Amino acid sequence: MTGGFDSESTATKLFNDIAEFSADTEGVSRPAYSSIETKTLEFLVGFARDQGLAVSYDAGQNVIFSLPEDADAEKFVLVGSHVDSVPNGGNFDGLAGVIAGLLCLARAKHLGIGFAKPVKVIALRAEESAWFGPCYIASKALLGKLQDSELNALHKGDGRALKAHMTDIGIEVDRVQKHEPLMDISAIDAYIELHIEQGPLLVEKNLPAAVVSGIRGNIRHRKIRCTGEPGHSGAVPRAYRKDCVLAMADLLSRLDESWLTILQKGEDLVLTCGMVGTDPQIHALTRIPDLVDFSLDFRSQSTTALDAIRNLLEQIIKSVERERRVKFELDAEMYTAPALCDSQMVKGLLASMENVDLEPFTMPSGGGHDAAVFANAGIPSAMIFVRNRNGSHNPHEAMEISDLIAGTDIIFNYLTEMPE
Amino acid sequence: MTGGFDSESTATKLFNDIAEFSADTEGVSRPAYSSIETKTLEFLVGFARDQGLAVSYDAGQNVIFSLPEDADAEKFVLVGSHVDSVPNGGNFDGLAGVIAGLLCLARAKHLGIGFAKPVKVIALRAEESAWFGPCYIASKALLGKLQDSELNALHKGDGRALKAHMTDIGIEVDRVQKHEPLMDISAIDAYIELHIEQGPLLVEKNLPAAVVSGIRGNIRHRKIRCTGEPGHSGAVPRAYRKDCVLAMADLLSRLDESWLTILQKGEDLVLTCGMVGTDPQIHALTRIPDLVDFSLDFRSQSTTALDAIRNLLEQIIKSVERERRVKFELDAEMYTAPALCDSQMVKGLLASMENVDLEPFTMPSGGGHDAAVFANAGIPSAMIFVRNRNGSHNPHEAMEISDLIAGTDIIFNYLTEMPE
Repeated sequence: MTGGFDSESTATKLFNDIAEFSADTEGVSRPAYSSIETKTLEFLVGFARDQGLAVSYDAGQNVIFSLPEDADAEKFVLVGSHVDSVPNGGNFDGLAGVIAGLLCLARAKHLGIGFAKPVKVIALRAEESAWFGPCYIASKALLGKLQDSELNALHKGDGRALKAHMTDIGIEVDRVQKHEPLMDISAIDAYIELHIEQGPLLVEKNLPAAVVSGIRGNIRHRKIRCTGEPGHSGAVPRAYRKDCVLAMADLLSRLDESWLTILQKGEDLVLTCGMVGTDPQIHALTRIPDLVDFSLDFRSQSTTALDAIRNLLEQIIKSVERERRVKFELDAEMYTAPALCDSQMVKGLLASMENVDLEPFTMPSGGGHDAAVFANAGIPSAMIFVRNRNGSHNPHEAMEISDLIAGTDIIFNYLTEMPE
Repeated sequence: MTGGFDSESTATKLFNDIAEFSADTEGVSRPAYSSIETKTLEFLVGFARDQGLAVSYDAGQNVIFSLPEDADAEKFVLVGSHVDSVPNGGNFDGLAGVIAGLLCLARAKHLGIGFAKPVKVIALRAEESAWFGPCYIASKALLGKLQDSELNALHKGDGRALKAHMTDIGIEVDRVQKHEPLMDISAIDAYIELHIEQGPLLVEKNLPAAVVSGIRGNIRHRKIRCTGEPGHSGAVPRAYRKDCVLAMADLLSRLDESWLTILQKGEDLVLTCGMVGTDPQIHALTRIPDLVDFSLDFRSQSTTALDAIRNLLEQIIKSVERERRVKFELDAEMYTAPALCDSQMVKGLLASMENVDLEPFTMPSGGGHDAAVFANAGIPSAMIFVRNRNGSHNPHEAMEISDLIAGTDIIFNYLTEMPE
C-alpha cells in the first residue's frame, strides 16, 4: 500500500538528522527566523527533491512542497505546521506536522497516485512566542494579519525588532505592514495541521491520535499586582492588616471554585496561575507582604465561557478589594479568540480514522496553533493530535513514531478519499 | 522635678548623633557585633561618663550603666534593650529602650535621688536576626542559653560564623558554648525593657504608651515547598492537573478561615505568609506550575493557640494533598515559646502609668524581644511599648520623642516608687 516506502524509518531519520544540527545544551533550539530555522528548511528541501517532489519558497520565506503535478494548482488543500522550536525545546512540537505532510506527499509519489484534490505542504517559520513575544508570526504574515506592534516586538536575545529579522531573511516587510496577504488566500481550499498533543489526554485514554474539535482561545494577564500594606508579622492585629498574599490566595481560591462550577455546567475552561512572587528585595518571613505579582491564563473553546470568566474575575477582584482593603492592578489583557475546526472536515477526518482502523475520538486543543490563524481568516481548518508524553516545549517531549504514522494515515486517507 | 535635666533635648541629641555615624544608604545599619555597634556603645559610654554615671563592660561585651552608688549592688533591677539594628533599619528599634534607661539614671543623678532598689541599665548587642539568622544573641549568651547551632550560624555578609565574630570582639566563646551564664543570674531581681511598638495599635488608640502583657511566641517555617506536576496551561484538563499554586492558595485560604474562627473564640493569634514564589528559572505564563515555595509565621501569647494552629496546619496539608494530589515539604519548625510578663510588675507599671497621668493600657507584644529571653530564664520581666508610626525594621520608624519621655516617666516612677 505504501509502494515500498517506509514511513516509519524515513520519519525517524528526518527527526534524528534535524535534532543533530539543532541540538542545544538540552533539547533543541530552532529560533524563529534564525539561520538554524533556515537550515532546517533547506534540509527538508533536500529530502523533498530526493523524493522527486516540487519545492518553492513563498513570499514569507516558508517552503511549499507538492507532487510535481500539483505545483501550479489554482486551488489546493494546505497541510503543514512550523519548524521553529522554543529554546531548549523538544524535537516534535511543530516539526511533526511538517514531516507528516511530507510523508503524505512521498507516499503518494511512491504509490504513483494523486490526491482527491491538489495538496500542498507548508513548512512554516516563526510560530513560537518565546523569541519575540507574539506567536504565529509566519502564518499571520502570510495571511496579512500581523500587527505593527508585533512587527516592532524585540527579540529576547539580540534586542532587534522582529521586522529587522524578517527583512534579514528576505521578507518584504512593507507588504506585511500593509496587511497584504503574501499568498492568494482564495487559493487555499482548506488547512490541515498535525501536532503533538501538549496535554496528557491521549496517553490517559490510550489512544494514538485524535481529531481536534476546536482550538481554545485565551485571556491572559502576564502581571496582576496586588498591593496591601507592609507590617511586622507579629505586631499587627488581623483587623488592621492589608495582606496582599492572603488576598491573592482568596482570589485564586474563588476563581478555582468558579472554574469547577463552570465545568459542572458543561462549559469548556482551563485556568492557570503559572507565575507568582513577592519581591525578593523586600519580602521577609516576619514582614506582612504589601506586594505580590501573579499571572492568569484562561482558555476555552467558547467565547461565552471566556466572557463569563472575565466578568467573574472583575467581580471577585472588587469583592476581595472591598473585604481585604487591598488593590489589584491588571496589565492589558491579551486576547486570542477561540477557533472552531470546520465541522465538515472534522466529520471527514473522523471517517478517515475509521477507515484506517483507529477509534474515532475528538478533543479540544488547549494550545494555540497556526491552524487558529487560518481558521480565523475564514479558511476551513482542522487538526490532528498525536499522543505525546511529558507535554511540549521541553526536551522530554515523547511522541512514538508509530503514533505519528497513525496520525499521518488519517490525513493521507482523508486527502486521497476526500469527497468533492 | 527633673533637676534642670532636659530629657527631651538630651534624647533628641543622642538619637541624632548616633544616627549620623550609623547612617546607611537609607536609614541606619548597626550590624550585630560590628565596629559600628561597638562605636554606638562607646558613644553611650562617653555620654554616661559626662553625666557622672558608673560604666562597665560585662563578659558579653555589653555595657552596664548605673548610679555610682549602685555599681557594686549585689541585687538590682536591670533596665535595657539592644543597640544593633537591621540593615537599612530605623533608629528607634532597640536604641529607644537603652536611651530610656540612661535617661532614668541621668534624671536620678541630676535630682540627687536614689532608686527604691538598685538599678542597672544594660545596652545589649546583637538582638536582630537579620545578620546571622538567630535572634536575641547577646541576651541568650548572657544567660547561658545560646545553642551550638546558633554559634555556628554564618554571617549573611562575610559568611564567617557567629562564634568567630564573638571571639573578635573579646567574648570567651568557650564559656558560651558550655552554657555558662556570663552574668550572675540570681543578681537580677527583674528586667524591664522599653521598646517602640512595631504595630499600629497605639497610633489607632491615640495612646503614647502601654504596658506589655506578654510576648507572643511563634512557630515559623522559612520554606514550605509544594510540588505538583508541570503541564501546558491550555492542554491539561482540570481533572489531570496537579497545580501547586492553586493548592497553596487553598491552604492559605483555609488557614485564614481557621484564624478568624480562633480569634472569634477569644484566642490570641496572628498569621503571616510573608514570602511566596514560583521558580523564575522555569515558571511561565502558559505553564502549569509544579513548584512553589512559601513561608509561614504564626504568633500567639498562648501555647495552646500555637499548638492548635500547628495541628490545624498538619490537617489542612493532609487534606489539600489528598484532594489536589500535590505534596508539601516543610523545613524544620522554628519555635519560640510565648513569654508572659510578670503580673506583679505589670500591676506596678500600670499604677505608675496612673501616677504620671497616663491612661493605663495593656497590650501583647507581637515581636520577640530580649525581655522574652530574661522571662524564660525565670527572671520577672516586663515591657513598656511606646507609640510609633510605620512599623519597625525600616527607615520610616516614627516615634515622637515626647512619647519616649512618657514611657520613660512610667519606668522612672516605677523604679523610684517600687514597693519592696
